[in-house]
Amino acid sequence: MRVDVAFTPAELPKGGAAGRTVVVIDVLRATSSIVHALFNGARRIVPVTTVEEAVRKAEELGRDAVLLCGERDCLPIRGFDLGNSPEEFTAERVAGRTLVMSTTNGTPALLASAGSAECLVGALLNAGAIARRVAGAERDALILCSGREGRFAYEDAFCAGLVLRRLRQLRPRVRTDDAGRAVLRLLGRGQGSPAPILRRSAAARRLQEVGLGQDVQFCAQVDLHDVIPSFVEQRIELTAGE
Amino acid sequence: MRVDVAFTPAELPKGGAAGRTVVVIDVLRATSSIVHALFNGARRIVPVTTVEEAVRKAEELGRDAVLLCGERDCLPIRGFDLGNSPEEFTAERVAGRTLVMSTTNGTPALLASAGSAECLVGALLNAGAIARRVAGAERDALILCSGREGRFAYEDAFCAGLVLRRLRQLRPRVRTDDAGRAVLRLLGRGQGSPAPILRRSAAARRLQEVGLGQDVQFCAQVDLHDVIPSFVEQRIELTAGE
Repeated sequence: MRVDVAFTPAELPKGGAAGRTVVVIDVLRATSSIVHALFNGARRIVPVTTVEEAVRKAEELGRDAVLLCGERDCLPIRGFDLGNSPEEFTAERVAGRTLVMSTTNGTPALLASAGSAECLVGALLNAGAIARRVAGAERDALILCSGREGRFAYEDAFCAGLVLRRLRQLRPRVRTDDAGRAVLRLLGRGQGSPAPILRRSAAARRLQEVGLGQDVQFCAQVDLHDVIPSFVEQRIELTAGE
Repeated sequence: MRVDVAFTPAELPKGGAAGRTVVVIDVLRATSSIVHALFNGARRIVPVTTVEEAVRKAEELGRDAVLLCGERDCLPIRGFDLGNSPEEFTAERVAGRTLVMSTTNGTPALLASAGSAECLVGALLNAGAIARRVAGAERDALILCSGREGRFAYEDAFCAGLVLRRLRQLRPRVRTDDAGRAVLRLLGRGQGSPAPILRRSAAARRLQEVGLGQDVQFCAQVDLHDVIPSFVEQRIELTAGE
């Protein structure tokens, strides 16, 4: 079994992710928000690329039936119901609701997983659950970091390393590629909170600039939720655990 | 002063490398071969994308006036004079000659540097010379790893880390990005030969498969040559040191 890592959607191998499980990671903040929203009872999340598409999708589903959420340059989108801070996605706001979400980096990565055998949504919040699920499957996997505007993002690589380390604790013979070896090395032996590491990333510094630094602290919580969101037929819902 | 790192040409920031020094790295093997060939007296190297373009360029310059060199899938190209193993580029073969070179990963990275203020060619072989040159310049820089078929390559990231660490020894206040912090961490504190690290990379394993494992050993030599190749007007020549 092999589990490779891509640092950006552009690094998807030729032939994409056909036949593999893809784990999409955008720690700051899209996949953290998705994991937290589904944990809090959101019915489903529909990721879309543009603001216009989000509005159109909301009209199609019935504007009152959905919550529009997402960000541009980290900030909430005018006219939307929620931004992209995980803690906005409380049970009070999201339980039973359909969320239409558009974010800068996470959404394109999710859509790039098209053609995979299965697409899971991972973050530090559910790293352990994801590792167990991938380890329990019979097929090869690819951990797809969303990155930041097409470039490497430290926090996503760190999370990929954590998932891969957990996976190898469960299946020591899992093979990986150059990027997988790099993320394992980035992790080092550290067992403490990744919050200080996350705070030095470009994404975290941008969030601090716009007053959203508390999101970094929230997204740095490892294994807060034992949930596995799965992206199937244009929507993300919880799947049963392994 | 800031010095960022890109793991593949696709990671070049928007606006490319305008106004910056770009250091192109393809440790296994294109930039190692270029450094060694110029050290051995090659007059200039003309990188081109395709085999057809190489042949056309050779006809334009006079077939006997040039050496055709390069690889496809690591192997020498039929009808070419030299492959892409650095040790083929001996003084006997290359002194005073113009080389037309086409390689899979290094050439596209070199061509992606178009628009930069200055494009330097780096490898482990000349890491120290490159670091001194970048540190001595007044402008921001970008270390561009060629990667492997559009994906992260460990050996290039390692070399980027070495150049960045040397740079910071000379200019401790150099700022960097997420990828720069990652490559510094990949390096660790190790001061020994990088050969064992390089040998685990996907590129090295492919070279070993086709009987070119000795190239890895050669390319792992840090600071073998004190030369700085510069890519200007479609050709690479040595520049004077700082």
